[in-house]
Amino acid sequence: MAKSPSIKGIEFSGIEAGIKPQGLDLGLVVFRGTMNVVSAYTRNQVKAAHILYDRKIEKKPVRALVVNSGCANACTGQDGIDDLSSIASSLSPLVGIDPKEVLFASTGVIGKRLPLETMQSALPRSVDALSEASIDDFARAIMTTDTHPKVVKRSIEGKKPYTIIGVAKGSGMINPLFATMLAFVFTDFPVSPSNIRRSFKASVKESFERITVDGECSTNDTVLLFTSRQEEDPGALGVFEKGLREILKDLSMMVVRDGEGATRIAHITVEGARKKEWAEKIARRIALSPLTKTAFYGCDPNWGRIIAATGDTDVPLDPAKIDISLQGKMVAKGGVEVPFDEAKMKKLMNYKEISVVVNLNQGKASYDIYTTDLTYDYVKINASYRT
Amino acid sequence: MAKSPSIKGIEFSGIEAGIKPQGLDLGLVVFRGTMNVVSAYTRNQVKAAHILYDRKIEKKPVRALVVNSGCANACTGQDGIDDLSSIASSLSPLVGIDPKEVLFASTGVIGKRLPLETMQSALPRSVDALSEASIDDFARAIMTTDTHPKVVKRSIEGKKPYTIIGVAKGSGMINPLFATMLAFVFTDFPVSPSNIRRSFKASVKESFERITVDGECSTNDTVLLFTSRQEEDPGALGVFEKGLREILKDLSMMVVRDGEGATRIAHITVEGARKKEWAEKIARRIALSPLTKTAFYGCDPNWGRIIAATGDTDVPLDPAKIDISLQGKMVAKGGVEVPFDEAKMKKLMNYKEISVVVNLNQGKASYDIYTTDLTYDYVKINASYRT
Repeated sequence: MAKSPSIKGIEFSGIEAGIKPQGLDLGLVVFRGTMNVVSAYTRNQVKAAHILYDRKIEKKPVRALVVNSGCANACTGQDGIDDLSSIASSLSPLVGIDPKEVLFASTGVIGKRLPLETMQSALPRSVDALSEASIDDFARAIMTTDTHPKVVKRSIEGKKPYTIIGVAKGSGMINPLFATMLAFVFTDFPVSPSNIRRSFKASVKESFERITVDGECSTNDTVLLFTSRQEEDPGALGVFEKGLREILKDLSMMVVRDGEGATRIAHITVEGARKKEWAEKIARRIALSPLTKTAFYGCDPNWGRIIAATGDTDVPLDPAKIDISLQGKMVAKGGVEVPFDEAKMKKLMNYKEISVVVNLNQGKASYDIYTTDLTYDYVKINASYRT
Repeated sequence: MAKSPSIKGIEFSGIEAGIKPQGLDLGLVVFRGTMNVVSAYTRNQVKAAHILYDRKIEKKPVRALVVNSGCANACTGQDGIDDLSSIASSLSPLVGIDPKEVLFASTGVIGKRLPLETMQSALPRSVDALSEASIDDFARAIMTTDTHPKVVKRSIEGKKPYTIIGVAKGSGMINPLFATMLAFVFTDFPVSPSNIRRSFKASVKESFERITVDGECSTNDTVLLFTSRQEEDPGALGVFEKGLREILKDLSMMVVRDGEGATRIAHITVEGARKKEWAEKIARRIALSPLTKTAFYGCDPNWGRIIAATGDTDVPLDPAKIDISLQGKMVAKGGVEVPFDEAKMKKLMNYKEISVVVNLNQGKASYDIYTTDLTYDYVKINASYRT
């Protein structure tokens, strides 16, 4: 078995605390030194308690992160925030840190309070289980409908060797602006607060904002990046930033590939637009269309549904100029069909990844985004998730 | 068996022309006198050939309407428009009218040309089958994934008795702005062009724009209203307008109830908004949410998904003020849960129609809209529709 990725001084655990009926549900990360943190949160106006709580304290160095699945702690009012304070106070003496150095994240059902006593009484076990090698347990403890844990790693050579580790969960209620439910990135690379804010923001834009599963923007979406507070290693900054971009891109692709019920993903590219925002608007419209998503599920080269979605925004366009390619093969040119062999094309669509390119032929701007197909299992998972 | 609704001087037919592999697929209406027509078409920028064609001639009186299922004749370029001219020329001598007095509508697969010769050679049979009593055949000929024909009728007492008959098809690719695929309303009531335009526009706004199935705006959406060109009967105008409103509302409700794969509909009302547009934006967001729609399918009183959708627009709101009721029972007050019996509530949700009321408690404006649940069958129908 491959050795778990690890970083010296960062300890993980994931245990069964009893928040969910069964399975790992309580993740803990403790940093032996203090860390800087940068964050990106959901744009939904209804925000979970952990977001309201974290925002108040994350400007300062942090020492621990508590993540639970099985309960989103969203729409729980001031009580939900107070619950987090109580847990921080319980954890504090167990690991010898200030309660104000603890961040939180939650995922699960909206509208229910955290089982406070259950979680508090599980904390000693959480702390006992901490080890640098336990990131896989942590990754499992934060899963909901995910089919597998999501952990990625990059090594960086600077003045000394550094590591970036990313971990994420999410497969439903996924829509960019913002995208995944939870993702955490840890690194011992030392980077200045100003550099990391710029670099983090750009990387999130090219990763989590480029995926969608179902157009649903969660109340809990959170990405946190923890970095070393040592003096910056400027020689390796470029390599670090490249590694960070890759980590976030990898995590976001793992999330969309594990989209609820998905059998394949589709890479939608809109090019030849006059403005990038216009390309983006159309790409997102196609990526959310239930009719294109069910066609992807059926391996159906149904370019008609794609052009219908293309026309269904307020972006000015000339339907008679639109070209559409599927899997690299042009199926419509100038808005009308290029005759193709239906059976061959269907076979070509029967892959894990489908490429869709829509050329508006009106300019030079483009945008691309990944989406999933829409399947029976998406309906099944979500018609019965709560019960 | 109930007698088919009919209007003197308006003849219908519906025959199997061979456009589809099987079933009725060619509908024809011939008016013994000329009629005025008012129309509402899709807001999709990609418009089917019949819309581009009809728009040019519909300002004048019309004498016939040809509607086919099995082929949308959309994204077929100038050829698709020329095909309609050819069909009008073939029909003209058969019924003794000018080719320019013929309107068209199509529904079916996008991107394929009409089978011109098949249709032209079927026209004599179409004409032979014409009768005032055949509206049911016409209604069946325009169906695609509809599970039943949709015909409604109102009687009006004026200087003499008048009738309004409405017929519609549509169950997928349904989204307001604009809503159904095809609806036609016929009446012998005489009404002035200016009165009818105002009245028609208002009625469409309160009917077809208040339903959605899957958020997909079709390339072919069309509502045509044919009225008598006799001098207006002003005394009965109010009654007529009320009848017209009811006809369009009934047709739109038949369309949403027959939504692809739907097992039930949900009536979403957003109230307590500062502006009606804000209430509308949130109501539409909830109505299109795959997570609320799958919850409706599962009879799940999942108000968390409803409040998440409520927060996921740019309408300014205070989550801590939001109240949510399901089936008349308050399940969330001030953004947090009002404890309820899960099993009882689930039973209460197991009806053909679910009522959802979201009160923002910030003003007096409201908006309501009907949507369907999202089911296995929606996916099944649309993953295999074309093959």
